[in-house]
Amino acid sequence: MAERLTIALDGMGGDNAPESVVNGAAMARERTPGLSFIIFGDEAKLRPLVDAQPHLKDAVEIHHTDDVVSNSDKPSYALRKGKQTSMRLAIDAVQSGDATSAVSAGNTGALMAMAMFGLRTIPGVERPAICSFFPTERGETCMLDLGANVACDADNLLQFAVMGEAFARTAMGIDKPTVGLLNVGVEDLKGKDEVKLAATALRETNLPIEFKGFVEGDDIARGTVDVVVTDGFTGNIALKTAEGTSRLISAFLRQAFQSSIMAKIGYLFARRAMQKLKLRVDPRRYNGAVLLGLNGIVVKSHGGTDALGFANAIGVAADMASQGFIAKMKHDFEHVRATEFGSNAPE
Amino acid sequence: MAERLTIALDGMGGDNAPESVVNGAAMARERTPGLSFIIFGDEAKLRPLVDAQPHLKDAVEIHHTDDVVSNSDKPSYALRKGKQTSMRLAIDAVQSGDATSAVSAGNTGALMAMAMFGLRTIPGVERPAICSFFPTERGETCMLDLGANVACDADNLLQFAVMGEAFARTAMGIDKPTVGLLNVGVEDLKGKDEVKLAATALRETNLPIEFKGFVEGDDIARGTVDVVVTDGFTGNIALKTAEGTSRLISAFLRQAFQSSIMAKIGYLFARRAMQKLKLRVDPRRYNGAVLLGLNGIVVKSHGGTDALGFANAIGVAADMASQGFIAKMKHDFEHVRATEFGSNAPE
Repeated sequence: MAERLTIALDGMGGDNAPESVVNGAAMARERTPGLSFIIFGDEAKLRPLVDAQPHLKDAVEIHHTDDVVSNSDKPSYALRKGKQTSMRLAIDAVQSGDATSAVSAGNTGALMAMAMFGLRTIPGVERPAICSFFPTERGETCMLDLGANVACDADNLLQFAVMGEAFARTAMGIDKPTVGLLNVGVEDLKGKDEVKLAATALRETNLPIEFKGFVEGDDIARGTVDVVVTDGFTGNIALKTAEGTSRLISAFLRQAFQSSIMAKIGYLFARRAMQKLKLRVDPRRYNGAVLLGLNGIVVKSHGGTDALGFANAIGVAADMASQGFIAKMKHDFEHVRATEFGSNAPE
Repeated sequence: MAERLTIALDGMGGDNAPESVVNGAAMARERTPGLSFIIFGDEAKLRPLVDAQPHLKDAVEIHHTDDVVSNSDKPSYALRKGKQTSMRLAIDAVQSGDATSAVSAGNTGALMAMAMFGLRTIPGVERPAICSFFPTERGETCMLDLGANVACDADNLLQFAVMGEAFARTAMGIDKPTVGLLNVGVEDLKGKDEVKLAATALRETNLPIEFKGFVEGDDIARGTVDVVVTDGFTGNIALKTAEGTSRLISAFLRQAFQSSIMAKIGYLFARRAMQKLKLRVDPRRYNGAVLLGLNGIVVKSHGGTDALGFANAIGVAADMASQGFIAKMKHDFEHVRATEFGSNAPE
């Protein structure tokens, strides 16, 4: 990446902000020297952190604001009252073109509301969706929606399929990503009506989408398809169930290695392999959920992540910006509008 | 268990039937000598398998039938044409009182349809639900519905809570089981309308239910509550996502132990601990999903399980029968009907 990419950061969002934000920015810039940042938030707190990072000094502009969105703020309240919050100003920077993308570890609902208000959706997209990566036996899969829309109709699911496919093609670098609809069985007759309707539409579409039909919950980790499409209620629960199961087995594994002298000796020998395994399923590695379908790149970092996790979220934003993701999405939906969604397009 | 408990087995259901069924019955009887079985299916195949099990001979009655439900049969077809199938006859044996309970590893949809038709629901229960165990950090949790009902309203969820609570109390032996509703956040304002309505009803009820409010996907493995209540679409996807994640991490762990000479040596030392870990998350250990809400005990075994898994499913059926589960459920719903569900009661 030779060009200079400016990324707007919500300096105050997340449990470990502003440390995780500033130190994450420093780590991201070590990996990608072309990055520069506008960090929004409390300058008195941000300045010493930036000054402590020799890599950052020349690449950061601090934009002071006293206001922050709290985790308990309702999206509607944040939207009305939060015009000077660090979160809102980061999104405004994308809207004005001062930044290529925004990253926040703050309140998801408020971020989505502000992003929708400030950036609007791409023509043809009724609702944005949250999309993120999952580790699989074959590499990585992305899934959407992970919680932006608790109820979705067939049109929403169809649009998510188009959005997810474009994301996998540009941000994940997959030539012809395969797409599956999450369902309770792979047979045509099973599942909810909206899922069945979306499947019919995806089978009949003349869009260049490699639609593989229905997939089940265990297909996510199997990597059966590159893009798993579902509603935000199911997707959020699948995401958190996977996280919970992963943590449970890690806890069981730790207990197993502590369970006898022999096991403890075994751990000493296998330690490096186990550390690599830990990195392989480290949630920080998959940090950075994208709000897809907007007229701009907004990445939501996990609220509890540290600098490494935040750096990865910045990396997702930087990749998407350098790939010209928004222009590609717009192009896709112009094509989609003409074929499928005429009635749903904003105009 | 001193009394003699007769269990009806679908001898032909499942990928490994009839071997898994007969050998599973033998294993179950070794653990619980009071058990006896009526096995329905092809006598020419069943007889030699039974004869090969010295523990079984005196405790098994084989009831010959040529008909079987196939995995591709639609529930409606199985119900109409399947009156002499091994599955249907096993359920009929519960209905007639010849058996205390039935176990099948066959087609889930057909089993549910036949069980509903043959046994009917308990007064006050609109729809039965599938309930099963999950390993957690604290022991075991049960979740329902795991796939019987793809769409559920607030009343259904409320009834599932009552059913699941009774199940945890009797079959899991928990004095005052805690109950949570699966949602995309723990705050009151989040989630689908039917989930929010069900929560309000559970908070206001005068039933002796320890309702803990909303839980999220990661609370399943955490064991935050004893009973997780959700609709069948979400529950099925959560179940399979957990299974898939567990398999993925197991695969990563195997690869890690193969990744270097040191890791291989480590495995030699830790082998016994790892084998115990494997048993701890072995899906066969949690085999046996109960069709809850019916006027009789019907347990669905995983279709791909082996004799050990099938024996565990028989164990669930035997526990519920010996605890007088159906009488307790009926008692609960008499109480429930008077307070909550008057309008939904079947008559």
